[in-house]
Parts: sequence; C-alpha cells; structure tokens
Amino acid sequence: MDVAIVLFERFTALDAVGPYEVLANMPGATVTFVATSPGPKRTDTGYLALTADARLDEVPEPDVVLVPGGPGQVQAEQDGALLEWLREVDRTSTWTTSVCTGALVLGAAGLLEGKRATTYWLAVEQLAAHGAIPVADERVVVDGKVMTAAGVSSGIDMALTLAARLGGDDLARTLQLGIEYDPQPPFDAGSAAKAPAHITSWFRDNSRFILT
Amino acid sequence: MDVAIVLFERFTALDAVGPYEVLANMPGATVTFVATSPGPKRTDTGYLALTADARLDEVPEPDVVLVPGGPGQVQAEQDGALLEWLREVDRTSTWTTSVCTGALVLGAAGLLEGKRATTYWLAVEQLAAHGAIPVADERVVVDGKVMTAAGVSSGIDMALTLAARLGGDDLARTLQLGIEYDPQPPFDAGSAAKAPAHITSWFRDNSRFILT
Repeated sequence: MDVAIVLFERFTALDAVGPYEVLANMPGATVTFVATSPGPKRTDTGYLALTADARLDEVPEPDVVLVPGGPGQVQAEQDGALLEWLREVDRTSTWTTSVCTGALVLGAAGLLEGKRATTYWLAVEQLAAHGAIPVADERVVVDGKVMTAAGVSSGIDMALTLAARLGGDDLARTLQLGIEYDPQPPFDAGSAAKAPAHITSWFRDNSRFILT
Repeated sequence: MDVAIVLFERFTALDAVGPYEVLANMPGATVTFVATSPGPKRTDTGYLALTADARLDEVPEPDVVLVPGGPGQVQAEQDGALLEWLREVDRTSTWTTSVCTGALVLGAAGLLEGKRATTYWLAVEQLAAHGAIPVADERVVVDGKVMTAAGVSSGIDMALTLAARLGGDDLARTLQLGIEYDPQPPFDAGSAAKAPAHITSWFRDNSRFILT
C-alpha cells in the first residue's frame, strides 16, 4: 500500500508527521513525501526542514494521499501543478485525506464539492467557499473516501481511524500501542469550546496572522 | 529561550516533532535541530528525513535540550561526542529532557544517576542499568530539572508540561489550543495496561526487533 504525503513551504510539521508515524508502521505500507519541487521544505516556524524525496509525478497512483496544512496552504492553493496532481490521484486513490488547513488545498482542487469536511478550528467556515459542508464539532470527518481532520494533532486520531478502515481495529490498536498513544494532556484546553474564553478570543483576534 | 533538539540516524520522527510543534510556538523561543554531523537524518522507517541545521558545538548553552528516541538510540549511546555535549549542556540548561528511548541516551551520558525517569514502555527496565529509578506508570516524569517522557506521542504531553513550567499554565493552554490538542483516539489501546493482551504480548515477543 502506497501512501503519499504532500509537502510545501511553510507547512505545519505535526500535521504531516503525526499521521506518518502511524501509517509508515503499517505492515506492507510505503510512505513517500512528495512535492512539486523535491528537496527540503521549511516548516511554518522556520526552525525545521523535512525532505520531500519525490516529485509529484513520480507517485502517480498512491492508495492514500494526505495533505497537511499550515500557513503555506495559502500558496499551495495557487499551485496549479499540485492541484492538478491531486485531482489525478483522487481518481484512483482508496483514501484522499487532509489534516488542518490541508482541507482547503483539497477544496481548491475541487475535491470537497458537496462533501462534509473539517479543518483547523479557525478556518472551518472557509470550507464553504470550496463547496464543502463545514463540520465544526468533529475531530475526524469521513465522507465517502475523503477523510479530513481538524487541526494539527488531530492527524494522529485520523491516521488511527484510517488504519482501522484499511486493516481492521486490531491493526489500529497495535499502531496505537506502538506510538504509546495514551494521551494525558496536562490541561483541557485543546478545542475552542474547552479553552478559557480569553485564550480562544486571542486566537480569533489574531486569526489573520496565524493562518497566513 | 533556546531549545536544542538532537537528531541522529534512525530516530523516531514523532518523538522530536511532537515537542517541537509545542516549543517552537512559545513566544521568544528559538529551536535548533542539532547533530554530531549536520544534514538530513533519516528516521527509523527510512521514509523521511529531517534536517539537523547545526553541529552540536554551535549550540553550546541551550536552555532546553531534548533527546528523542528510536532504534538509532543504540548507536547514539555509543556516540562519544554526543554524550560529552549532553554532559556539557546539562551544566547550564534549565531543562534536560527526553522522549521515548532518548532517556537511554541521557542515561548513557550519566545524567540520570539516582533520578526517577521513564522511557518507551518496552524499555523501562533498561533505565536501571544507567543508575536511574525506572518509572513505568507515568507518562511524564519530572525529577529536578530532568524531564523524561514515555513513548513517542507522549512528547506532546511532556512539552505542554514543560511550557507550563517555563511560562505558566495559560501559555501551555494557548499552545494546546494552537495545535488543537483535544485527543480523541478511536481506540483505548495506547498503553500496555489498556491494549488487548494479545497485542501487548506481540510487542513483548518482538521487543528485540522493535527497539534495535
């Protein structure tokens, strides 16, 4: 089973690496990090580079395609070669997936038309501009073969959901124990509904800065 | 505040990237990925490379040092230059930290002597060989200025704990909402105690393969 994870400049590292860590450990899976131009891609913070090993056209028929998000999504939405490749691979993929604002890239490619989808909590309403049905209160949304995750860390939950669909519940449980994913965050502030109001407000006031 | 994250060949990506995603978004923080020899470092699966931007000696006094784990930890424990650097930076660090089997590298450097510490669930007993007091049932263990996390994904919980110590609870909550960390794993199999017995047994039977 071939998994292709798209990289672009100013992506968010955990969007890609969370699902990678689950999917790359599935027996029989290969994972390829792909980009319009291969080579090192800097994350949104500037402090880290991940290498895209292959050009998009070197991976023409992945079974699973995953698009991460991050501020660079704004430029990715303008990358005609990427959008064309996404439309092509979606014809034969088993699953077309995104994490965080990667959903907006799928949307720009026209792949969310009429579909329920989610994205980073600050960007959910933007999905409607791509003809999607925005879902604000689910961490992982499945509509047909399209699976979208909410922000950043939610890609781990999505990948386990995907692993269960691909190989059964026990495969997913095995992968979960493999990454010792028994989350115990020291605070309960991981969603807009749960975080203190002044923190949620700060993000909303700065969303233009955070998302671009 | 300067954070140094160590990379080496065959590390586990999420060990490093989970905490990075939290710590790199702290106001005023800089994060540098360091290695004995800079350049791209391949993860344990072989499917991904992260770039170490700096040599160890280019970051002589980080406030926070973090060592990830992965099968390459076995070779990292033999890397005299890395162990010497860890001993040096520990003299001035505010926090010396590890995720997963990165704790065994701290141990090999002599930094866990007499300290309570944890690591990947399959490797906890190995901590005793380094003079540490192994802790099997805590996801994040703090002893003085040494903070160790359990396996792979637990680095996210550790980084939020660390952020709270560095900048207060509201900073940690802000970072948590920033990565939308409201975990909802589809299964409850993320620890040896919670996973089905046949899955835990499979890991124990294959631990020699998994850890090296």
